[in-house]
Amino acid sequence: MNLTIRHELFEQTKMWIREAGILIKEKLNEPLLVNTKSSKNDLVTEIDKSIEAFFVKKITETYPNDVILSEESLNDTLIDNKGVTWIIDPIDGTMNLVHQQSDFAISVGIYDSGVGEIGFIYDVMNDQLYSAVRGKGAFKNNVQMKKLDEHLTLDKSLLCVNPRWLCKQKFFDKNGLRKMISSVHGIRYYGAATLQIAYVAEGKLGAYLSMSLEPWDYAAGKIILQEVGGVISKVDGTPINSLVKESCIVCHPQIHQELVKLLNSHI
Amino acid sequence: MNLTIRHELFEQTKMWIREAGILIKEKLNEPLLVNTKSSKNDLVTEIDKSIEAFFVKKITETYPNDVILSEESLNDTLIDNKGVTWIIDPIDGTMNLVHQQSDFAISVGIYDSGVGEIGFIYDVMNDQLYSAVRGKGAFKNNVQMKKLDEHLTLDKSLLCVNPRWLCKQKFFDKNGLRKMISSVHGIRYYGAATLQIAYVAEGKLGAYLSMSLEPWDYAAGKIILQEVGGVISKVDGTPINSLVKESCIVCHPQIHQELVKLLNSHI
Repeated sequence: MNLTIRHELFEQTKMWIREAGILIKEKLNEPLLVNTKSSKNDLVTEIDKSIEAFFVKKITETYPNDVILSEESLNDTLIDNKGVTWIIDPIDGTMNLVHQQSDFAISVGIYDSGVGEIGFIYDVMNDQLYSAVRGKGAFKNNVQMKKLDEHLTLDKSLLCVNPRWLCKQKFFDKNGLRKMISSVHGIRYYGAATLQIAYVAEGKLGAYLSMSLEPWDYAAGKIILQEVGGVISKVDGTPINSLVKESCIVCHPQIHQELVKLLNSHI
Repeated sequence: MNLTIRHELFEQTKMWIREAGILIKEKLNEPLLVNTKSSKNDLVTEIDKSIEAFFVKKITETYPNDVILSEESLNDTLIDNKGVTWIIDPIDGTMNLVHQQSDFAISVGIYDSGVGEIGFIYDVMNDQLYSAVRGKGAFKNNVQMKKLDEHLTLDKSLLCVNPRWLCKQKFFDKNGLRKMISSVHGIRYYGAATLQIAYVAEGKLGAYLSMSLEPWDYAAGKIILQEVGGVISKVDGTPINSLVKESCIVCHPQIHQELVKLLNSHI
């Protein structure tokens, strides 16, 4: 992607995200209509839909040739696109929005022929904008994020994992996971995938594990993470090359190998 | 407790807490010395110790007859005190302070002959001060917190529970807990007991469960919670009458009965 175009795209998208953040805050003052999708715990609100519509309108008007992949949209499978693809989660953490009116995010990843060029994760209520341009570093608001290069061991890490995976999970050895959970510094779970990836990128968490992330959950975070030297892989340790639903390890580089080993051992 | 004395005590303590918050922020700019206490996951820093010393000095100078019960102090068992007792956690969420430099709190509860009169929980880095005076309502900064009187069912609640209890716990039926975790709206875990009680009080969480809370974890939160109509009980549903280490259910009043039933069933 041409550097000038990329810079313009970055600035344009940032402006839209800030605008969407204001829209959300306005809408939070109105009564909230909540519906369910695939299950009783899979919520969608008018806010999710209207913020998606906001981005779709802006993008199709300004960049009519680009492809959009978005959580709430009908177009929710990735076309093998040689041009620019926008991967959007208008509200990640809808459950938090409904219960807490905080701790949710807008996530926008921009890919060119499959290569992640620009990533944004915006923690709306705390007004924290994580962003990255490939090869140019990652930022939290206007402060450059540090590389994840300090020494870290798994036993001294905070891990983020949905406690539900401990109750019923099909993807890998439950005892390996339980053993790991007992051996680390602590477990946290905030309920918004994109923010949890951002927290790994800024060193607040050593790792975030998920048995099932959708492309809009990690598309932007992957770009931010890579700019600080973080790792994202499938649970078996292999790279995520295409934007599909995946089990993911998102982590500090120094604990990746140990995590993969532990999660794939059948003790 | 005399109302004028109580008002003065409230204002005085609030000032000290704000002052302690500034001290913590200054100390976070210096290198952090971390030690372990009972286990490798039980951390204590110079900040915990110096903030405790700060409160002990202020209280003993100003109210020399009062008793202090504090996490880091030698005096960590409650004397059956007929006068005023200060129950302090200088830093609740030390692990978060060490890893995240956020999401920790100062907690101060003031009891008179065993009755909770004043409670403060201060989320230092987000500058959110939860406070309550018995019978006078609870506040988040200067805004009065709403009563927990809206309709809520357990299946539509967010619960806060340490995922470790799912891996190894001795206190009650594991299957009952796992079943419950699968049936609610979602699980969260932030790693600071006092903040988690504050989140229940402000409706961000439906309930917070812990198999083991120390008095300094819940002394202030209990007062705040009661002012908004929230419930704190032992896991068996009976009231907590003395300030000792307890298993606790902290919750919205409408789901207390169901929680007690589920947690104590041996299916």
